[in-house]
Amino acid sequence: MIEAGVVGGSGYTGSELLRIILNHPEFELKFATSRSYSGERIGDILPSLERLTDQSFVSPSKEQLEGDLVFTAVPHTKAMEYVPYLVENCSTVVDLSADYRIPTREFEEVYGAQHSDPGRECIYGLTELNREKIAVSSFVANPGCFPTGACLSVLPLLEEDGVNRILFDSKTGISGAGAKPTESTHFPNVQEEVSPYNVTSHRHLSEMKMVVGGNNRDVYFTPHIIPSTRGILTTSHLFDVSLDEDEVFKLFKDYYDDDYFVRVKKDVPKLSSVRGSNFVDIGGFEIKEGRLVVVSAIDNLVKGAAGQAIQNANIMNNLDEKLGLDYAGLSP
Amino acid sequence: MIEAGVVGGSGYTGSELLRIILNHPEFELKFATSRSYSGERIGDILPSLERLTDQSFVSPSKEQLEGDLVFTAVPHTKAMEYVPYLVENCSTVVDLSADYRIPTREFEEVYGAQHSDPGRECIYGLTELNREKIAVSSFVANPGCFPTGACLSVLPLLEEDGVNRILFDSKTGISGAGAKPTESTHFPNVQEEVSPYNVTSHRHLSEMKMVVGGNNRDVYFTPHIIPSTRGILTTSHLFDVSLDEDEVFKLFKDYYDDDYFVRVKKDVPKLSSVRGSNFVDIGGFEIKEGRLVVVSAIDNLVKGAAGQAIQNANIMNNLDEKLGLDYAGLSP
Amino acid sequence: MIEAGVVGGSGYTGSELLRIILNHPEFELKFATSRSYSGERIGDILPSLERLTDQSFVSPSKEQLEGDLVFTAVPHTKAMEYVPYLVENCSTVVDLSADYRIPTREFEEVYGAQHSDPGRECIYGLTELNREKIAVSSFVANPGCFPTGACLSVLPLLEEDGVNRILFDSKTGISGAGAKPTESTHFPNVQEEVSPYNVTSHRHLSEMKMVVGGNNRDVYFTPHIIPSTRGILTTSHLFDVSLDEDEVFKLFKDYYDDDYFVRVKKDVPKLSSVRGSNFVDIGGFEIKEGRLVVVSAIDNLVKGAAGQAIQNANIMNNLDEKLGLDYAGLSP
Amino acid sequence: MIEAGVVGGSGYTGSELLRIILNHPEFELKFATSRSYSGERIGDILPSLERLTDQSFVSPSKEQLEGDLVFTAVPHTKAMEYVPYLVENCSTVVDLSADYRIPTREFEEVYGAQHSDPGRECIYGLTELNREKIAVSSFVANPGCFPTGACLSVLPLLEEDGVNRILFDSKTGISGAGAKPTESTHFPNVQEEVSPYNVTSHRHLSEMKMVVGGNNRDVYFTPHIIPSTRGILTTSHLFDVSLDEDEVFKLFKDYYDDDYFVRVKKDVPKLSSVRGSNFVDIGGFEIKEGRLVVVSAIDNLVKGAAGQAIQNANIMNNLDEKLGLDYAGLSP
Repeated sequence: MIEAGVVGGSGYTGSELLRIILNHPEFELKFATSRSYSGERIGDILPSLERLTDQSFVSPSKEQLEGDLVFTAVPHTKAMEYVPYLVENCSTVVDLSADYRIPTREFEEVYGAQHSDPGRECIYGLTELNREKIAVSSFVANPGCFPTGACLSVLPLLEEDGVNRILFDSKTGISGAGAKPTESTHFPNVQEEVSPYNVTSHRHLSEMKMVVGGNNRDVYFTPHIIPSTRGILTTSHLFDVSLDEDEVFKLFKDYYDDDYFVRVKKDVPKLSSVRGSNFVDIGGFEIKEGRLVVVSAIDNLVKGAAGQAIQNANIMNNLDEKLGLDYAGLSP
Repeated sequence: MIEAGVVGGSGYTGSELLRIILNHPEFELKFATSRSYSGERIGDILPSLERLTDQSFVSPSKEQLEGDLVFTAVPHTKAMEYVPYLVENCSTVVDLSADYRIPTREFEEVYGAQHSDPGRECIYGLTELNREKIAVSSFVANPGCFPTGACLSVLPLLEEDGVNRILFDSKTGISGAGAKPTESTHFPNVQEEVSPYNVTSHRHLSEMKMVVGGNNRDVYFTPHIIPSTRGILTTSHLFDVSLDEDEVFKLFKDYYDDDYFVRVKKDVPKLSSVRGSNFVDIGGFEIKEGRLVVVSAIDNLVKGAAGQAIQNANIMNNLDEKLGLDYAGLSP
Repeated sequence: MIEAGVVGGSGYTGSELLRIILNHPEFELKFATSRSYSGERIGDILPSLERLTDQSFVSPSKEQLEGDLVFTAVPHTKAMEYVPYLVENCSTVVDLSADYRIPTREFEEVYGAQHSDPGRECIYGLTELNREKIAVSSFVANPGCFPTGACLSVLPLLEEDGVNRILFDSKTGISGAGAKPTESTHFPNVQEEVSPYNVTSHRHLSEMKMVVGGNNRDVYFTPHIIPSTRGILTTSHLFDVSLDEDEVFKLFKDYYDDDYFVRVKKDVPKLSSVRGSNFVDIGGFEIKEGRLVVVSAIDNLVKGAAGQAIQNANIMNNLDEKLGLDYAGLSP
Repeated sequence: MIEAGVVGGSGYTGSELLRIILNHPEFELKFATSRSYSGERIGDILPSLERLTDQSFVSPSKEQLEGDLVFTAVPHTKAMEYVPYLVENCSTVVDLSADYRIPTREFEEVYGAQHSDPGRECIYGLTELNREKIAVSSFVANPGCFPTGACLSVLPLLEEDGVNRILFDSKTGISGAGAKPTESTHFPNVQEEVSPYNVTSHRHLSEMKMVVGGNNRDVYFTPHIIPSTRGILTTSHLFDVSLDEDEVFKLFKDYYDDDYFVRVKKDVPKLSSVRGSNFVDIGGFEIKEGRLVVVSAIDNLVKGAAGQAIQNANIMNNLDEKLGLDYAGLSP
């Protein structure tokens, strides 16, 4: 068994990691840290996990953390405090924060913070893009939730002529905003509402540009909060496309032929099909007047965070990437 | 008092017309038709209207309908059966169906149906665009819900250079689908979901093109259903825009300076601010890398249907356009 | 015109008062206080009210407040700081807090706070119970939201034999918890959830006992939060009832015969029928094995707070109680 | 491996059975029937199951059905057509319909239908009550969703003096109404609503009385639909209770000491803690003025249907009852 630890185990991403680890046939939970709940039983704080573990949250110093595998599920700028110690003391590390996803200089600009661990080598963990590199890496930066759904919806098209302008109009459940109550998570502010935010300048845009930009391609992104807890649906609009619908569909089928967690279908995908699961559903593929619409659906906390982290950890540990993740979502 | 009748009074649009008429200081409900509920008290079928009226639904023949003012709130292809009689027998008629919004030939193509009353003269009732023409018209075709929110979000920009490509990515509450249960209105299919549909070819696109197309301008439209009952939020993306944010804001402020029901603000608008009201809130106005984002929010059943119809009827009857509509929405 | 002021105008109850006052034919908004937003335009803070007023929030000292009519919409223990000044300087005062609803001694026990203005004479403003007393009062304590819906669902039965045990199992929208974000209003904690709280000892119970207790009658109350913003539906269970269903229905019809805002019907009422309106819908009236079920539906922010306060203010000012309130709710 | 079949595989209960079976370490899906979708790939009809199976729905005659284990997930009165054949040809059968839960005569009365297979011997599958009998049975009638949550919330109290009157006030997600769209599942009729129905006479009441009635004990039941897809929360009110809170808590802890899927805690349970899982959370345990409140939470489609059926099937097949069910729910 591989001993797995979670730094930051009581937030939404952390608790989702715990949910998956506790059900993983080859992982054993070694520790879950939480400053707020140190010493308290995990099942008391996260009652959905009662019976699955008797462990309590711990709060050791950074230097004491060790294990075969450690996940950091802490806010950006916090992960960089842990990572230098973890990569020393742990065989494999997956960071779920934003700290290492994009080059240091860009991170500092986009997140308006100084990086205390600049230039560290790491692999960007969009599994379907970098599987081979991930397999030989000991430190992976897990992608952001929006970039995961968005980039996967266009990756097969990037080599095609004319794919010069991509707009991602994304709709996310509110759980992406975390477990802490704020104005924007207040129920009456979400119910019967849909809220665009950072409509031209969301931080995840630079991550998207890193993955699918280049070649003078314009990449635009506007996220919206919908009255749902989980899920990200991204409507990708591409303009001046000269392919036809069948060609596009074939490109996607071929590209993702070996990717278990990517399900390509002609139908527009549904969040309910992926809820609680690591699957990415991609569909739509309609073209009219040169505009191509591709739609992707993920669970933001699974493929958009904890699930993809486990998928990467499996690969880093030479396990079948499906381990602990090979089950259907909750539908309805 | 102006005697007002509603053809098709038991659907969502019809009942919203009744709600407003029963509270209108100058309108008096003359009749509300319903084939399904003929003879039943309105308050028994629509319990929110109990106490506001003691009338019952009626079901006269088309020929018998008359009044100072009649609204048709029936499905497309049904309105054209009534309109020829109504325009004969009633002083003013507002049709809320799709039958007369676009030219006959285009209607037949887009809606796949033959028009039994082709070429009838009428004014397209986007109030803020056509107020003067509406004032002297006796027959108005009330706009679709999506085109209302979408077109108003870009009207002030149409004379500007470089506004050549507009994408409307709209999010609507499910009440737009009507009062009849279907697969797509089934609660578990809407909750925790967001559903793009007709992603390149929604029927309302031709109406949008009629209003804001032209000059080789590309107009695209993708609607989505969100887990809400009311409201349409449209995220309008314009590309290659050479204006700056202040110029855009000023264009909007100036254009809508005399339009009571259009509220222009820098903030991104919220559905809760317009819920149950006839207001259109427009905001956002961010530009980055040539892309301008403008967001509009309406209540699809009010400004998107019954409210705008009343606004038009007021104007057609030489009344203050605010009558019966001058109150705030429900927030939260 | 009657000049009306609101102390605490930016919370949910306060903003609902503003919504109604700004639409009231005989009231004119004199002031709305808000410490947090003093000096800011009301329409900037509460965008649904934009265009209805150009006033700004103010923050005068208690001593400066005066007007024909003042509403206090501040938390409990805060109202008692204002009321002694208001009753001096204002013709009519309606307090929407809990401070004066129940006798001082009981208030201190239930709310665990000392009362700084004990024993002040006031009328409990459950309109349908105390209309005559309200008409000659200058200071009214507006009822709690739960007691309003609960008590009205059993008032007609209190003189009947055998009505010795009443259980109110209530379901409320989350707006009752106020505009400030907390753990219990965090969207993911409300969505797909229903949360019983204070299951035997909610503070409103003592108010219910005051109104419908007595005669050794047992009164029980358990509130639940449902994933809705507005509305309270109360399922009232009465045991060992010897009446039959027709007798019960007749008792209710007779009792509320002159009460415009109480709509008695055999059907189980719906929240959508009262949403945004001052109506109370009461129905159900099923009896089996001695248990009677009566169900009431109100909008917690209207009949459960601001609407009933306006209704009371109308009566205190010798106006038709329907003024400013005589419109249908939003349905759907 | 045990070959498991599902009769009625495309409804909500059937698809939940498929979800669990496809993830079960000892079960192998032999067939899933569906008249509507016969011949179509399961993953095309239920896209959440894509990748988990390549099988298609089948539609054989009743006589042809055979397997080690068969579940019937068809409406009441339909199951009785299959069961006589299944019990002949299959080693173990679990019926998820209402047909065999209560005695034939009572079934005919409550469900208003003639029973074509009267008096058949079977075990009522409330696992925690009848585990031993289930272990030696080859035909089990799986309990209704409401009775499961309700009965488990009071079972430990039935031997106590004074427990003479129990009221179950239950709140259910709409998925209990099935996959077929109706008026009562129409999104605008559920959103911002809570709907009591069959307030004194729901069919599940007779099942509850069978399990927890007797000894002149009064058992009452009122169900409500809340705006959620999954979950049943039952608020159980017991009157004239002479125990204290600690005694009650201890009774529950002791009673369920060996029941893995029952989690007893002092806190009021949450639907999110059990969503998608087979756990029953029971808590509350407040007593005031003789009234005891106990609250239980289940996922209606798992412990309230498919999960408990699998739990029973495990036991009938001499497997650990946790197999295929030992994972946490989705929270948030």
